[in-house]
Amino acid sequence: MLTAIDNDLLSDGLKRVQREVDSVFDALLPLPTDTRLRLVEAMRYAVIGGGKRVRPLLVASTAELFGVSRDAAVRVGCAVEAIHVYSLIHDDLPCMDDDDLRHGKPTLHKVFDEATAVLAGDSLHALAFDILADEQTSSDPFVRSELVATLGRASGVNGMAGGQMMDMVADEEEYDLHSITRLQQLKTGALLAASVEMGAILGRVPPDGRAHLRAYSRDIGLAFQIADDLLDVEGDAEKAGKALRKDEEQGKQTFVTLMGAEKAREQARALVDQAIAHLGSHGAEADMLRALARFIVERDR
Amino acid sequence: MLTAIDNDLLSDGLKRVQREVDSVFDALLPLPTDTRLRLVEAMRYAVIGGGKRVRPLLVASTAELFGVSRDAAVRVGCAVEAIHVYSLIHDDLPCMDDDDLRHGKPTLHKVFDEATAVLAGDSLHALAFDILADEQTSSDPFVRSELVATLGRASGVNGMAGGQMMDMVADEEEYDLHSITRLQQLKTGALLAASVEMGAILGRVPPDGRAHLRAYSRDIGLAFQIADDLLDVEGDAEKAGKALRKDEEQGKQTFVTLMGAEKAREQARALVDQAIAHLGSHGAEADMLRALARFIVERDR
Repeated sequence: MLTAIDNDLLSDGLKRVQREVDSVFDALLPLPTDTRLRLVEAMRYAVIGGGKRVRPLLVASTAELFGVSRDAAVRVGCAVEAIHVYSLIHDDLPCMDDDDLRHGKPTLHKVFDEATAVLAGDSLHALAFDILADEQTSSDPFVRSELVATLGRASGVNGMAGGQMMDMVADEEEYDLHSITRLQQLKTGALLAASVEMGAILGRVPPDGRAHLRAYSRDIGLAFQIADDLLDVEGDAEKAGKALRKDEEQGKQTFVTLMGAEKAREQARALVDQAIAHLGSHGAEADMLRALARFIVERDR
Repeated sequence: MLTAIDNDLLSDGLKRVQREVDSVFDALLPLPTDTRLRLVEAMRYAVIGGGKRVRPLLVASTAELFGVSRDAAVRVGCAVEAIHVYSLIHDDLPCMDDDDLRHGKPTLHKVFDEATAVLAGDSLHALAFDILADEQTSSDPFVRSELVATLGRASGVNGMAGGQMMDMVADEEEYDLHSITRLQQLKTGALLAASVEMGAILGRVPPDGRAHLRAYSRDIGLAFQIADDLLDVEGDAEKAGKALRKDEEQGKQTFVTLMGAEKAREQARALVDQAIAHLGSHGAEADMLRALARFIVERDR
């Protein structure tokens, strides 16, 4: 359970990173004076002011363990968030999930139009790599290049997009628990893991020093998705800010259909405990990562 | 005019780079044994075996001026081509240009479906940066990071995607020659220029040594688009392998509607002469770039 202290820590952390992320996107996306205006307005609509900002907080809290400058961490957080948001924009399109509501606001293609939504997603996708390759993110080209490689891998066919494909055909497939786990590790887990990994890359932690962080992010990634499945069944659409009960409608197997809600909840909590145990070598400086792990299964949105 | 020698040089060059690009994509996109199969099949359908491969040839021919390894140049060529192809896939979607034919084959969403087309485009987009950030492309992280920055800038809101937005609203706007030039510099020019730039980056040419190459690519970029507008009016759809007469149908201003076909043709040829003049400091080793410049205005596809 989230204690009162966790709650304050987390809520302050999310608010702070939300403000910082909004401010970086605001600076990165000035309104042009030509007819690209509509595109930039659409990008700003999608990327400023909404979302939980779990991924940027993961980057920033991991980077903080290693004394990374806050500015660099927030920029990398914006890059992951740009990828996350572009994927939501494309996912919400009529030809994909056909959703009308996201973060409690009408989806991008409803406010603008489908073509603008496709282009705004593509532009945010490019922006992510643009941010990472910029010297403002790190003066060390090796760090920049490792950041790009990590985010590229996590978002492509062997990461998020691959998971989305597996999810898209889920109603025709009889996925078992093993396949669902694999699907979710790609669809949701890869980007969450990349967030932690990129925090460590900024901190110049060599790959073999990242093992416990990888274990942490693998566990919270899975817990995150189980919590999402539970939210889809038990949640309040108004609080969640998006349509729920979709898995059942679409006849998809999920952790909840395969394990039952009670078992799934237990599993998510066990994963969170395990994730927190992986942070044993860190002291109070890792409390935000611990609070985030707990938040991930107890959130209502 | 393309002479017989130009023609052989160019046709051999295009065939060679086509083969090399196909072979790299084949190796990069093995068929998975899980349900991502459909996605990878779609990516392979789009990216192997079609297209003129003008951009990879631009990268490879520029890189050759500076003694870059052929493998590195072809990999960077594949990255630009992945961006180009993803943009065509998204551009052909029903909510965008709604095209049925591309490179003489049915468009991706016709063979697969719209959702798969969106995801395949997104996955190729990520693949492009994945390729550039890989040590196989360059052992020098500074080179890798400069490549990513160049392609990121050229494909996002201040490059290709921005130009596509300007183009999308073109039927509602009264663009003059200045606006059309700006639109095309973003939509087509930015990626062609990035191809040349990335060849020079691989060759470790410092920015101030790239000025003549930038001038070359700016001129061929504009000539390329004028030729495209002429092709749309005068071309043979079967040879072009895509629908033509679209600008007129959509009531869009183009170089041809604004200047007339004769003047536009003259302008394109003048730009090609100017582009070739910028290569004056190079000897026969730049003949491929010269032949490419001529091909760009004289092609029928």
